[in-house]
Amino acid sequence: MPSTDPALPPDDLGLLTPVTAGSPVTAATGDAALLAAMVRAETALTRAQADLGLAPAGAADVLAAAAGDLDVRDIALRARAGGNPVIPLVADLTAAVAARSPGAAAHVHRGATSQDILDTALMLVAVDALGATITDLGRTAAALAALAERHRDIAMPGRTLTQHAVPTTFGLKAAGWRSLVLDAHRRLAGTRATLPAQLGGAAGTLAAFLAHAEADGAPREPGLALRLLAAYARRTGLAEPLLPWHTLRTPVADLAAALAFTAGALGKIAADVLTLSRTEIGELTEGDGGGSSAMPHKSNPVRATLIAGTARQVPALAAILFGAMAAEDERPAGAWHAEWQPLRDALRLVGGAAHAAAELTENLQVHPHRMADNLDLTGGLVVTEHLAAALAPLVGRTEAKQALARAARRAATEMLDLDEALDAEPALTGLLPERRLRELIDPANYLGAAAALVDRALKEHP
Amino acid sequence: MPSTDPALPPDDLGLLTPVTAGSPVTAATGDAALLAAMVRAETALTRAQADLGLAPAGAADVLAAAAGDLDVRDIALRARAGGNPVIPLVADLTAAVAARSPGAAAHVHRGATSQDILDTALMLVAVDALGATITDLGRTAAALAALAERHRDIAMPGRTLTQHAVPTTFGLKAAGWRSLVLDAHRRLAGTRATLPAQLGGAAGTLAAFLAHAEADGAPREPGLALRLLAAYARRTGLAEPLLPWHTLRTPVADLAAALAFTAGALGKIAADVLTLSRTEIGELTEGDGGGSSAMPHKSNPVRATLIAGTARQVPALAAILFGAMAAEDERPAGAWHAEWQPLRDALRLVGGAAHAAAELTENLQVHPHRMADNLDLTGGLVVTEHLAAALAPLVGRTEAKQALARAARRAATEMLDLDEALDAEPALTGLLPERRLRELIDPANYLGAAAALVDRALKEHP
Amino acid sequence: MPSTDPALPPDDLGLLTPVTAGSPVTAATGDAALLAAMVRAETALTRAQADLGLAPAGAADVLAAAAGDLDVRDIALRARAGGNPVIPLVADLTAAVAARSPGAAAHVHRGATSQDILDTALMLVAVDALGATITDLGRTAAALAALAERHRDIAMPGRTLTQHAVPTTFGLKAAGWRSLVLDAHRRLAGTRATLPAQLGGAAGTLAAFLAHAEADGAPREPGLALRLLAAYARRTGLAEPLLPWHTLRTPVADLAAALAFTAGALGKIAADVLTLSRTEIGELTEGDGGGSSAMPHKSNPVRATLIAGTARQVPALAAILFGAMAAEDERPAGAWHAEWQPLRDALRLVGGAAHAAAELTENLQVHPHRMADNLDLTGGLVVTEHLAAALAPLVGRTEAKQALARAARRAATEMLDLDEALDAEPALTGLLPERRLRELIDPANYLGAAAALVDRALKEHP
Amino acid sequence: MPSTDPALPPDDLGLLTPVTAGSPVTAATGDAALLAAMVRAETALTRAQADLGLAPAGAADVLAAAAGDLDVRDIALRARAGGNPVIPLVADLTAAVAARSPGAAAHVHRGATSQDILDTALMLVAVDALGATITDLGRTAAALAALAERHRDIAMPGRTLTQHAVPTTFGLKAAGWRSLVLDAHRRLAGTRATLPAQLGGAAGTLAAFLAHAEADGAPREPGLALRLLAAYARRTGLAEPLLPWHTLRTPVADLAAALAFTAGALGKIAADVLTLSRTEIGELTEGDGGGSSAMPHKSNPVRATLIAGTARQVPALAAILFGAMAAEDERPAGAWHAEWQPLRDALRLVGGAAHAAAELTENLQVHPHRMADNLDLTGGLVVTEHLAAALAPLVGRTEAKQALARAARRAATEMLDLDEALDAEPALTGLLPERRLRELIDPANYLGAAAALVDRALKEHP
Repeated sequence: MPSTDPALPPDDLGLLTPVTAGSPVTAATGDAALLAAMVRAETALTRAQADLGLAPAGAADVLAAAAGDLDVRDIALRARAGGNPVIPLVADLTAAVAARSPGAAAHVHRGATSQDILDTALMLVAVDALGATITDLGRTAAALAALAERHRDIAMPGRTLTQHAVPTTFGLKAAGWRSLVLDAHRRLAGTRATLPAQLGGAAGTLAAFLAHAEADGAPREPGLALRLLAAYARRTGLAEPLLPWHTLRTPVADLAAALAFTAGALGKIAADVLTLSRTEIGELTEGDGGGSSAMPHKSNPVRATLIAGTARQVPALAAILFGAMAAEDERPAGAWHAEWQPLRDALRLVGGAAHAAAELTENLQVHPHRMADNLDLTGGLVVTEHLAAALAPLVGRTEAKQALARAARRAATEMLDLDEALDAEPALTGLLPERRLRELIDPANYLGAAAALVDRALKEHP
Repeated sequence: MPSTDPALPPDDLGLLTPVTAGSPVTAATGDAALLAAMVRAETALTRAQADLGLAPAGAADVLAAAAGDLDVRDIALRARAGGNPVIPLVADLTAAVAARSPGAAAHVHRGATSQDILDTALMLVAVDALGATITDLGRTAAALAALAERHRDIAMPGRTLTQHAVPTTFGLKAAGWRSLVLDAHRRLAGTRATLPAQLGGAAGTLAAFLAHAEADGAPREPGLALRLLAAYARRTGLAEPLLPWHTLRTPVADLAAALAFTAGALGKIAADVLTLSRTEIGELTEGDGGGSSAMPHKSNPVRATLIAGTARQVPALAAILFGAMAAEDERPAGAWHAEWQPLRDALRLVGGAAHAAAELTENLQVHPHRMADNLDLTGGLVVTEHLAAALAPLVGRTEAKQALARAARRAATEMLDLDEALDAEPALTGLLPERRLRELIDPANYLGAAAALVDRALKEHP
Repeated sequence: MPSTDPALPPDDLGLLTPVTAGSPVTAATGDAALLAAMVRAETALTRAQADLGLAPAGAADVLAAAAGDLDVRDIALRARAGGNPVIPLVADLTAAVAARSPGAAAHVHRGATSQDILDTALMLVAVDALGATITDLGRTAAALAALAERHRDIAMPGRTLTQHAVPTTFGLKAAGWRSLVLDAHRRLAGTRATLPAQLGGAAGTLAAFLAHAEADGAPREPGLALRLLAAYARRTGLAEPLLPWHTLRTPVADLAAALAFTAGALGKIAADVLTLSRTEIGELTEGDGGGSSAMPHKSNPVRATLIAGTARQVPALAAILFGAMAAEDERPAGAWHAEWQPLRDALRLVGGAAHAAAELTENLQVHPHRMADNLDLTGGLVVTEHLAAALAPLVGRTEAKQALARAARRAATEMLDLDEALDAEPALTGLLPERRLRELIDPANYLGAAAALVDRALKEHP
Repeated sequence: MPSTDPALPPDDLGLLTPVTAGSPVTAATGDAALLAAMVRAETALTRAQADLGLAPAGAADVLAAAAGDLDVRDIALRARAGGNPVIPLVADLTAAVAARSPGAAAHVHRGATSQDILDTALMLVAVDALGATITDLGRTAAALAALAERHRDIAMPGRTLTQHAVPTTFGLKAAGWRSLVLDAHRRLAGTRATLPAQLGGAAGTLAAFLAHAEADGAPREPGLALRLLAAYARRTGLAEPLLPWHTLRTPVADLAAALAFTAGALGKIAADVLTLSRTEIGELTEGDGGGSSAMPHKSNPVRATLIAGTARQVPALAAILFGAMAAEDERPAGAWHAEWQPLRDALRLVGGAAHAAAELTENLQVHPHRMADNLDLTGGLVVTEHLAAALAPLVGRTEAKQALARAARRAATEMLDLDEALDAEPALTGLLPERRLRELIDPANYLGAAAALVDRALKEHP
């Protein structure tokens, strides 16, 4: 059976997907893993039938052993004729089983449809891939908790629409990142726990299983089909579905949602790291930056870059998967087929990004002195809101705001510190004692409830 | 303040969105409703401050009353200058309050940032919109339960890749639709219950609230900020967030996921209705089909069409919202702004589609005789799988399949019934008693566990 | 006929879309404009029939006059029943014409299908909207040409993966922006010139036009239908299509492509402006920045923000439109309906963004001294590549790179200038004369062909 | 250097992408082909430098020979550290060249940046992939021309919103498909001819090339850089860009547009084939349908299914690519990286779909008798529009429409033929001579200008 042309170039080894190349999730979702999962599904089916007395006890073992003969490349190439890889798989598997035990061959794929096997295999692969991803999210959350605690009170500029706004803390930023990562963790873990096995036969009625049982002399009883569904799910280790879900795509849509969510959550961290490690800002550095093929001095935020690239791709892949829910009939002509590769790609990209996020956060270098320098950059403008609040009861809210806006503009254009610029605002002169003014102008005194928010957020557990 | 040019054409009254035009969800998400929700957010903030002794008791009432002066169109046009509608809203609201009570004006929007108000307003609007949508999903699920019960045992062709496969029942189809609708119901209701109020001030530290309190003589205490957050959430009726979520967009992403899911779930129903009401198939008709501007005889599946159109749009809108999670800094320059309209559009489209689905399913006409006719169309081919199972123990699985495939081809090309075509397969002749053969060929005897699956699915409650 | 409930809230006046609120493109694509375009299509059809002797000369004028009676809101609400707004439009228009001239009423919409009118109207609206957009792109290109010329030789840091790389010039950046804007200009103008009228009748065969002609006594001749198509296109001012394109959606797909391209082109400019106007970078400022509801000192890059928000939305809208090409039959159930609002939204968003881009580029403030300061930030690291090239022939390429990388790291960690750090590299000491070293370290001497590239790019005309 | 672990499972051999597995386009875009294209880019650069006297004549040959030592898998795995595969490629290539000719090693990648090589390689790969795709589109167009000619006058039901509308012809359908395929052909060929080489050096100024030239003693002259750009483009066989386009992504966006267009064009054909080959409709069959793992009688429209699956994926991939145009700086952190795999996937999917479309259309079986049977299905309803046109002058348009609608409803509910149902409409009785009525009711007499449209469309050439 093995007949692959060794001269055929391997299609895709990761050259264009550095975020996933060589990662455990990539291996867990590769064609070899997928073929193994399809064999696990076929084996589980035969075992489940044996559990109910519908197949000989040893047939599943023969099947599992025969899987060694399969040639993944050859099956992939022959998948085109029927539109899915299960058709050549079943042909080859049946032949391989027959070569070992002619009697067992009759029990290969008995009663099932291609989609039973491929959907189950994709869920098995998803469970494996998400396991590794969830572990990496856990590492990331732990690293972020440590960063939030260590830098709980480190002031830095809060930035809105790219401009300094008022101070915040790096602790609050890290706690916020962690909170998003925990949200992603919960969604992925919740979805993973519900992924179901697929079994319905040609049109989702489980009719062929009953027909074969009847032909073998079993009494006619629909309950048998439900028991088979339960036994099959148990043998695969996946959840038992309420109904065959050939065209009720809840599991795939839930995966799409959880994966797109996770890509976005990690993308937020990456967006911040990229901004804060800009040469001019310099508040963060990746522990071990990437080099350049041209410039000896570069140390690039490579992990953040790869994560950011992922966050740009996964929402579109999720859109394909959500769109595929509108699947006509008992098996659609295209909607189902459009799910396979985008689902795998999303699992891989998110898995690779989670791994990169763990490395990124565990090795992130924080530069509090640059944060402090940057807070000073605007000569105190970052605390005009604080001053406005203090002055409002004295001169009125509108007058306070206007005078401060004038002073802010003057400070910016004449390169003054804010307290100097304020001297030129007669309406404000002498309203506040010098010491109070100095206090108000210190960014460290305008951190609000940042620390309290950090403390409360860190109590949240994965 | 009102200065809208009445000659300005209203932009959008629903001419291009029949699925949403005039629907309760459209009104609930319209600009008037949104402006009202922004006022609710401002009022809740002032009330929450009053609850903690940080504002006079009457200020919120003045604010609520002053809202009558606002001109939504004028605010919309002035939103461009600062990039969001809260800036002109606060200016106008402050002026309107000042005209009534100069003292109260100082408490308008005190300590808040634009995003606090707009995010809260969008969540309030989402809660309203989803309320109507969830009700319509409940109606749809009830209608589908009735259809599934009534047609529990009505056989129809199961179709895969557009071709007749094996029989299924309309009961199982309706039960599957209902199961998807319930999945959507759960996801929307679950998300709706968690939508949080937004409050963080300029950079999410709640600093300005504390500064104003301090300026008014309150003791300096971060706990006050957390109590304010709780009071504000209570006053809005929304959930209290763990952290300000200006750039932690879990609620928006969760809405995206639940809305895309619902669009897909309803899209599945629409896809099936469209197929099954094709002129040649005729198994379903919308109770009250749409007309045509050209053809007097047309009765179109209009609701299914509008739902199908929705299902093609929402996944892309969700992709925008997932993509906006990668929001840099404490307020991003673009990612936040990109959320508003797609979120509203998704709420509207899904709300309109849910309403159409309720009407569709409550009035759906099912034609069992057409189902029966269609089952006969292939002269019995639809049950070859049944025959294959029965014959396999007698002649072997492979031989049974091959002989049946030959007979099926002959039946199709020579316009024979399957039993006639089988006569020409010597390997199969006489293997089964005539009565058994007739039994095997009756589609009604090959429905598998369809009824049992329906019964079990109908036990699932919204 | 007018029966709109004035209490019904107007759905959408622009509160959530500041980039488009009040813009000419928004008006040109609003429901009022669209209704007018549908009437233009109906009028053109009647005129074209009159041109060929198939309708009385005066009928089209009655029709045009009767359009004054139409109530857009009422039509929008009644569109739901049939799934498109042309059905109630034709009913109301026919009644209004009949009230004026019973004989003319028979010629309203004669032979046409809803899609003929709505598709044509959307193309008319697109032509108008694109006209304004293209004008704004022309303004933007002109402003960028002026910026590129004025700042042709102003050095600034080239940045890659967020880090300073080697110097570039602001002239080259502006010339690059302009080149993209011209690419967008060409694509939009090219597409606009090809937008066709739609006319095919119920199933695209133009049969009804011939049937009516025949019933009126005209000789039976298919050529008449083609002449009618030509006359209709001429009367609308749109291109004549080769075939009716009810389900051959080339024009819509071309619009999707050109609009997504333009959003991306403008999005590139916005991304750069947002980065370069960051507080820490400060190389650019929007001429007239946006304010803040909380912070008196803020001057935000609002136009860039709105453009960036647009660039995040339009690709997803384009994906809906490309997806709608897969439209079954002679008129699809959903794919066509899914085009209308996304097409309008894309036209509006891109139109608003082009307008914002014209304002942005015409008023952009460039700060060469900040560019110079930033070039110095890394103590010369930005020119290590220049040094590496000069040293390679002297010590070998690898050795030069390694020594410079060491020096760069030392300069960064010990806060040295690069020439100081180089002193500690014995392998490099004394290799280059002091003056040559100084020359090599000056960023102004490492601008490559930037000026020549600017000159050549500016020769490209819109 | 080769160090790949042979135990590492190959990631992706096509198991989940039957539409592309084993296709020429997949090979042309595989990692092996991409690595070869990167080497072609490096070689072209060295040759171009030699053309201008900036490198020894033999260096490029050494480089080309050394490429044999490269290990694609190893490079892929090491790409992660720097975020792109060119960094390890240049390291390995330099070492391999140095082993052959130490002097030549200094000329490997001299002056270039990673993006110069990877962008150029992707364009080279795109040119190859599109070549094969365009050939398949040409085959498809030719097959469709033949179908349109052969079935020019074969009547079939025109269908709108899933319902029979009025007759059309299969010739017109095929001519419409061909027209879309030709539109796709033009867009792909047009884009292919403009794909440019990439060369700019670290920040797009070409500075390093000049620096190396200067270090080697060449006179300082920016024109040299432009000449190098031209020579490099010539050596790659790609177009010469006006400017380096590291962040001016016109070529990638144009590819996105042309590929999404093509997917949609082929998706339209697939949507129609899937509908028309439904068991109940049966007007078309794929020449050689796909089998089933469960049902012996199935002959599935597999190619149409695979094409339809493609059309669901490519628009989302294009959205990623359009979104990546908003790329900050001189090289973005994520936007560029997000292009690679989606671009490759889109090339592959469209290439595979074009191949499937060629096979599909060359072997499509058309069943005119089923078209005729289906036209009769509604008992003449399909021609009510024809009758309405004929009756309008006699009884008025409105009365004619209403009476026909009543008759149509009666015909449908009472299973009558339309002429029988018309007998019960007194207003219409006796208005038309029996022969004329019969003529009007014959669908073959209501094909409008279908044949003339086919003739004119077939004159359009690829």
